Amino acid sequence: MAKSIFVLNGPNLNLLGQRQPDIYGRKTLSDVEALCRTRAQRYGFDLTFRQSNHEGDVVDWLQEARQEAAGVIINPGAFTHTSIAILDAIIATELPVIEVHISNIHAREEFRRHSYVSAVAKAVLCGFGIEGYGLAIDGLAALLGVKAQAA
Amino acid sequence: MAKSIFVLNGPNLNLLGQRQPDIYGRKTLSDVEALCRTRAQRYGFDLTFRQSNHEGDVVDWLQEARQEAAGVIINPGAFTHTSIAILDAIIATELPVIEVHISNIHAREEFRRHSYVSAVAKAVLCGFGIEGYGLAIDGLAALLGVKAQAA
Amino acid sequence: MAKSIFVLNGPNLNLLGQRQPDIYGRKTLSDVEALCRTRAQRYGFDLTFRQSNHEGDVVDWLQEARQEAAGVIINPGAFTHTSIAILDAIIATELPVIEVHISNIHAREEFRRHSYVSAVAKAVLCGFGIEGYGLAIDGLAALLGVKAQAA
Amino acid sequence: MAKSIFVLNGPNLNLLGQRQPDIYGRKTLSDVEALCRTRAQRYGFDLTFRQSNHEGDVVDWLQEARQEAAGVIINPGAFTHTSIAILDAIIATELPVIEVHISNIHAREEFRRHSYVSAVAKAVLCGFGIEGYGLAIDGLAALLGVKAQAA
Amino acid sequence: MAKSIFVLNGPNLNLLGQRQPDIYGRKTLSDVEALCRTRAQRYGFDLTFRQSNHEGDVVDWLQEARQEAAGVIINPGAFTHTSIAILDAIIATELPVIEVHISNIHAREEFRRHSYVSAVAKAVLCGFGIEGYGLAIDGLAALLGVKAQAA
Amino acid sequence: MAKSIFVLNGPNLNLLGQRQPDIYGRKTLSDVEALCRTRAQRYGFDLTFRQSNHEGDVVDWLQEARQEAAGVIINPGAFTHTSIAILDAIIATELPVIEVHISNIHAREEFRRHSYVSAVAKAVLCGFGIEGYGLAIDGLAALLGVKAQAA
Amino acid sequence: MAKSIFVLNGPNLNLLGQRQPDIYGRKTLSDVEALCRTRAQRYGFDLTFRQSNHEGDVVDWLQEARQEAAGVIINPGAFTHTSIAILDAIIATELPVIEVHISNIHAREEFRRHSYVSAVAKAVLCGFGIEGYGLAIDGLAALLGVKAQAA
Amino acid sequence: MAKSIFVLNGPNLNLLGQRQPDIYGRKTLSDVEALCRTRAQRYGFDLTFRQSNHEGDVVDWLQEARQEAAGVIINPGAFTHTSIAILDAIIATELPVIEVHISNIHAREEFRRHSYVSAVAKAVLCGFGIEGYGLAIDGLAALLGVKAQAA
Amino acid sequence: MAKSIFVLNGPNLNLLGQRQPDIYGRKTLSDVEALCRTRAQRYGFDLTFRQSNHEGDVVDWLQEARQEAAGVIINPGAFTHTSIAILDAIIATELPVIEVHISNIHAREEFRRHSYVSAVAKAVLCGFGIEGYGLAIDGLAALLGVKAQAA
Amino acid sequence: MAKSIFVLNGPNLNLLGQRQPDIYGRKTLSDVEALCRTRAQRYGFDLTFRQSNHEGDVVDWLQEARQEAAGVIINPGAFTHTSIAILDAIIATELPVIEVHISNIHAREEFRRHSYVSAVAKAVLCGFGIEGYGLAIDGLAALLGVKAQAA
Amino acid sequence: MAKSIFVLNGPNLNLLGQRQPDIYGRKTLSDVEALCRTRAQRYGFDLTFRQSNHEGDVVDWLQEARQEAAGVIINPGAFTHTSIAILDAIIATELPVIEVHISNIHAREEFRRHSYVSAVAKAVLCGFGIEGYGLAIDGLAALLGVKAQAA
Amino acid sequence: MAKSIFVLNGPNLNLLGQRQPDIYGRKTLSDVEALCRTRAQRYGFDLTFRQSNHEGDVVDWLQEARQEAAGVIINPGAFTHTSIAILDAIIATELPVIEVHISNIHAREEFRRHSYVSAVAKAVLCGFGIEGYGLAIDGLAALLGVKAQAA
Repeated sequence: MAKSIFVLNGPNLNLLGQRQPDIYGRKTLSDVEALCRTRAQRYGFDLTFRQSNHEGDVVDWLQEARQEAAGVIINPGAFTHTSIAILDAIIATELPVIEVHISNIHAREEFRRHSYVSAVAKAVLCGFGIEGYGLAIDGLAALLGVKAQAA
Repeated sequence: MAKSIFVLNGPNLNLLGQRQPDIYGRKTLSDVEALCRTRAQRYGFDLTFRQSNHEGDVVDWLQEARQEAAGVIINPGAFTHTSIAILDAIIATELPVIEVHISNIHAREEFRRHSYVSAVAKAVLCGFGIEGYGLAIDGLAALLGVKAQAA
Repeated sequence: MAKSIFVLNGPNLNLLGQRQPDIYGRKTLSDVEALCRTRAQRYGFDLTFRQSNHEGDVVDWLQEARQEAAGVIINPGAFTHTSIAILDAIIATELPVIEVHISNIHAREEFRRHSYVSAVAKAVLCGFGIEGYGLAIDGLAALLGVKAQAA
Repeated sequence: MAKSIFVLNGPNLNLLGQRQPDIYGRKTLSDVEALCRTRAQRYGFDLTFRQSNHEGDVVDWLQEARQEAAGVIINPGAFTHTSIAILDAIIATELPVIEVHISNIHAREEFRRHSYVSAVAKAVLCGFGIEGYGLAIDGLAALLGVKAQAA
Repeated sequence: MAKSIFVLNGPNLNLLGQRQPDIYGRKTLSDVEALCRTRAQRYGFDLTFRQSNHEGDVVDWLQEARQEAAGVIINPGAFTHTSIAILDAIIATELPVIEVHISNIHAREEFRRHSYVSAVAKAVLCGFGIEGYGLAIDGLAALLGVKAQAA
Repeated sequence: MAKSIFVLNGPNLNLLGQRQPDIYGRKTLSDVEALCRTRAQRYGFDLTFRQSNHEGDVVDWLQEARQEAAGVIINPGAFTHTSIAILDAIIATELPVIEVHISNIHAREEFRRHSYVSAVAKAVLCGFGIEGYGLAIDGLAALLGVKAQAA
Repeated sequence: MAKSIFVLNGPNLNLLGQRQPDIYGRKTLSDVEALCRTRAQRYGFDLTFRQSNHEGDVVDWLQEARQEAAGVIINPGAFTHTSIAILDAIIATELPVIEVHISNIHAREEFRRHSYVSAVAKAVLCGFGIEGYGLAIDGLAALLGVKAQAA
Repeated sequence: MAKSIFVLNGPNLNLLGQRQPDIYGRKTLSDVEALCRTRAQRYGFDLTFRQSNHEGDVVDWLQEARQEAAGVIINPGAFTHTSIAILDAIIATELPVIEVHISNIHAREEFRRHSYVSAVAKAVLCGFGIEGYGLAIDGLAALLGVKAQAA
Repeated sequence: MAKSIFVLNGPNLNLLGQRQPDIYGRKTLSDVEALCRTRAQRYGFDLTFRQSNHEGDVVDWLQEARQEAAGVIINPGAFTHTSIAILDAIIATELPVIEVHISNIHAREEFRRHSYVSAVAKAVLCGFGIEGYGLAIDGLAALLGVKAQAA
Repeated sequence: MAKSIFVLNGPNLNLLGQRQPDIYGRKTLSDVEALCRTRAQRYGFDLTFRQSNHEGDVVDWLQEARQEAAGVIINPGAFTHTSIAILDAIIATELPVIEVHISNIHAREEFRRHSYVSAVAKAVLCGFGIEGYGLAIDGLAALLGVKAQAA
Repeated sequence: MAKSIFVLNGPNLNLLGQRQPDIYGRKTLSDVEALCRTRAQRYGFDLTFRQSNHEGDVVDWLQEARQEAAGVIINPGAFTHTSIAILDAIIATELPVIEVHISNIHAREEFRRHSYVSAVAKAVLCGFGIEGYGLAIDGLAALLGVKAQAA
Repeated sequence: MAKSIFVLNGPNLNLLGQRQPDIYGRKTLSDVEALCRTRAQRYGFDLTFRQSNHEGDVVDWLQEARQEAAGVIINPGAFTHTSIAILDAIIATELPVIEVHISNIHAREEFRRHSYVSAVAKAVLCGFGIEGYGLAIDGLAALLGVKAQAA
């Protein structure tokens, strides 16, 4: 049976491609979803892909993932720096959770350098643009011991 | 006429009993609700018992309590450390508000030692496990001058 | 065609007039809305006026303003001090955003002196009571080069 | 055989009822002792009740409790914020120790918000006035699995 | 009898229009004075308008305003961040004092984010360019309950 | 009837005259007591003069002063910087308490610049050598409205 | 020949008696000068008494004192906390300089607790009201070894 | 012509597989090199693979990469947190540099959470074990627009 | 004539061997005393060995040592981190004072890393278990130029 | 036509040679002026040389330099560490401004290590004694591309 | 078979006896080596004794010790305060490592009070002059359970 | 006999002219060396000119200078901010050491504003571009009392 993975996106990521393209690029969140679906298929993963501007939704979805998924990829957006609720929800999943950021958050404002999520994520990557989602799925597959399927 | 009290729970408390049982124990939020109902009855209190992962819900409910309740018991979970909106809503209730935590938050990570809520709560307790809710109801009754009713 | 402006209000502002009147005065949020409508008419602005206790709603509405409005006036309430999501949403609007506070937040608790919003707002004002909304509309009109219409 | 509990009070608590009654109330330390004796009887506990202005006495008594008691309730007064010796003595007891404060220390001066004791106490409560001692005995009984005896 | 208001300007504001026009715009301090005179007339205010590079002058003038004026508008320039003497002089005026900045100081260097003046001003505004002076006079009039006079 | 004043000295002040004479001078604590007795007589004060290396003693004596004295002069020595118990005891006296230091503590190590006592003392003086005690008695007399008696 | 002493007063002290009388009392700076003249006569001192709102004046006068005076009493007002120029000028006097404050600055806002002047003053006193000037002259006389003259 | 990439390793990485295997795993640096060579071949990259315990060597090699390579992957080990020289050398390369860590450095000691390198790296990843090197090569290829070659 | 040395122990050291044996080992304070007596004999030293939970006792004993001893070995326990009174008493001894800790305090909680005593001790050692006392006596003998006596 | 340069000196520099000669040397400000005149002549510069204890004068003179000079050399004395007004005036000059200190300010008190001026100066030098003024003129000439004239 | 121990010395220790003799004494590093060889013989230890100014050498040698030695004595000199690479290498040795300093580093500049090494060393000593190396060998022998051999 | 001076350069200075020319200019390190040789000749100095990316080399060379040179000019590059080993080596030289930076480090990133070297250097200069080396040699000559030789 196919394993399920969740890709969760935090606030303002629905504006991807329109907002500050010099930082975030011109690809949209639909492009990200398409990229994720293609990459997930490579490993036979079912994909749940969501975005919300509400912290509570992200917590709800992490609790849902806890029941249904084998792993989670999360781009918490601005919640990265402010949400202990998400930190707690990640611990509660007892799953490998990969934190992704499109831009290199370490090269930006000081307040973007602290992440509550990083301390409880299994792995973290940033700065690869939207390809970071693809690398995160590859990395999650490796952590789960799932190999790419023959084409 | 019976007085009403609110017991409000913040994010991830719906996972109680499943999440990190070494810290939070094995009792569920239903167990907490049952404990609260029994204890509230002892004082003839009507009980409103709620949980949400959304900060805005907790603020909404505190505003509701402001109209309807004689006192509030709140376990703000992770919002304890990050929500000034809840701090403001507690002030606005003009009610005695008791802050409860199941674990001793002072014995955990540094970021759990600061509580925005404590400065505006009437009283605070932590570390008694779920029995802390019972003690909070007893304490709230004492603050309100309500005595236990004859059995 | 009339330009549209948004006036967005954060948590607990629905309690205006009831909560801590020594700080916030006795006028209600309806009074604020009325004041804003009158003042907006002076410049021929369409007005969207909203309040929520949910951070996500404020982010959603800023994204909506991004599509529809010529400018935004925001009183983020407690989110002023805690929300990077709103900061990001304001940047994304690419509109002039005016931050308003009814009280002088610099004369209150230390934690109210830091505003994430101020760094990305076009202009900031506080301490004028609810008349601050009127001044903000006047100021926004000036920034947009819109003059008051003949009576 | 009856279990023994210690109730230890730190500096200036002998002035209770006379000193700053707006903060600490008008009940005296004798009232506190009477309240504690009544409540301890409910659980069949022997009670040792003491106060000192000397940090060393509190350390000595914690070491005594280590030999003789099943649990400790401590209101360390000002030593809460300055004494690592008491912190070490509490660890050494290997007993459940409940920290009590009459006022809500989180609503007072900044230097009263840090407690060396809280990190090693089993549970903490504050803000319930002298009734806090009663709740602490109830809570200690619950932690020890001792039920109230039939009247 | 006409009420008097003071508009006081701190160091380097005499260079307005020449210094860093990308931040401060191209209008000169004479333009500001003209704008203020026009706006003050609208309310029937007498206007005293001054600038100095000497902290002591600003203190002297605030003491003068204390005797003669109904309110003060102050752009303390760099003294905003360094002068406790001006803070004390503002308290001593026992008048409504409005703090104005041409640029949004919160969007600039870190050391410009702290204002000694804001904590004792009645109201604060920044980021509206020189129109901020006009809004400050409008706001001061509102605080003083003075209405615009018929044209 | 003669008024009583207490002069209380903290740790190591019994070594005065022997310890670090370049900082504390060569006069002994007996010299200080003699100076105080002479000066107290000038105002008809009874004098209680004590020294201890035990923080608890100083707290006990402040409580005693609370019952018997019209004012207190205290040189808390090293407890100045570490004792919140003494701070609380001073508040509890509800008396004018003058803090004295022989050396100028502001010209010494950084950790000697913070005094818990100063915030609750009525007045503070340091750097006058042992004559500081005399000035403190003069100052206390002035605060109490007691004049020097004819010789 | 009579020795000369300088009494220098910083910003806003000319408002003494009018400004915040709950903190500074109702005596004026003229009262202070009169008190100082009377006390100086007791020791045969010539007195120079000045006040300015300009930091530079205070520096100029300290340099003048350096040439003419045997000692200085300074109440730097707000410059206490901000002026390194005055610190340097005090060092340069090579005279005993006594720092005086009318109120207890340690019991006020945090920013009033740091004094640049204290580290280089010979002695410091605060909280005695305007009598503090008298005690400072007494103390300065003692430091200079000048005795009160027969009446 | 084949492009060249550098993989540079900082201090103690030569102990990989032997040192703290619970943190770093049991694979050796030879295993890492083999993994990198295989992965580099997939993109037709020439690979230079080095390790040193000397900060100066890492700086020297980055300068060498500056002349010869199309991109760099660096695991600076402990130099991550202490070397501004490496930060400067990375800027000087004017190449895409990917920072890799085997463990999740954000879940470890506080001093490992600050990286001088991250602010100037193009992208950062950590927590994937040695597979992180493979993902870094994939990511670098994507950034360089180099596709995997047919098998 | 034999020289005298003092070995002074702070709070909770009387529990040695019983309290947290994983940190402090299973040897008791009697074992420490025996070890010290044997080692002191080697150098012909008279030994005074004491322990107290009262800071004031430690200060008193240091003053006693000042009169009678050639050197002091002190394990201040928790007072290490909180007592400026002991710091002052050590300075006053004008003797070589060796600070000893059984455990390596640098490998424990952050608050145990700061020692007021270390800055005024002649030498410091920690982490050797109770043998540290023996090394301290050896080291003190070397500092005093006293050689081991023939057996 | 000869270019003009300004050499501006802050507070207490008029005492040069008399004040703390171990730090500042025995040369007077006249010596400095003479040195500067000689050195300026070497490049054909007109020299304006001034000193004031008033921050406002320094700001005024920088504004004057803005109109008349090709470059400025400034020794801001104590204003270095406290004056944002001078910082702003330097930016406004749009000239190369060289900051000079006679002593090495980095080897002195901590509060002398931060300079507001340095961040906006073109170049900074300290520790060369009064010869530093000569080097500053040489350096300014080099920055302006002015060569020494034939003797 | 004889056990081996390493004594490793960091930067500038080769200047011992010449550099700052008031702090470090007049004995040279050769004297230290001789002292160590004599003391090591007492326990039958082989001794490897080295010094380098290169951090990388110290890391290399710790890795060498990891293979060959039973314990390490290290005086990291300035690297104490700056090198995480040495911290990591010490952990990797899995040996008892004793940190030695000739002077009492706690009595010197603030930046010398923090040691990265101390947190991972087994034991630490400082302030005994070069005899500290001898005590460290004695202490290491005790920790290894090796007794002095009969002469 | 000619005096010798050392000019020592830290990491990445070998890239001068290629790396970030907007900050460091387009002159190479060879240009710097040529400039230094010419200027040294003016005073009859022998010149040793070196660069390394290895901190240990800089320490070695400072020790060499200690034996052979009359003074040192050092541009420590990134080691400025991180190397206490170089700080110690500079103290050990007992020579006048001049710290030079090509750019104005105070106008760059925060972490470049702290220099360990400055506190022990004799003099410091920055921001003059490579001409700074020339001024440093002039200044060193002045400090050594060496005059320029006749051409």
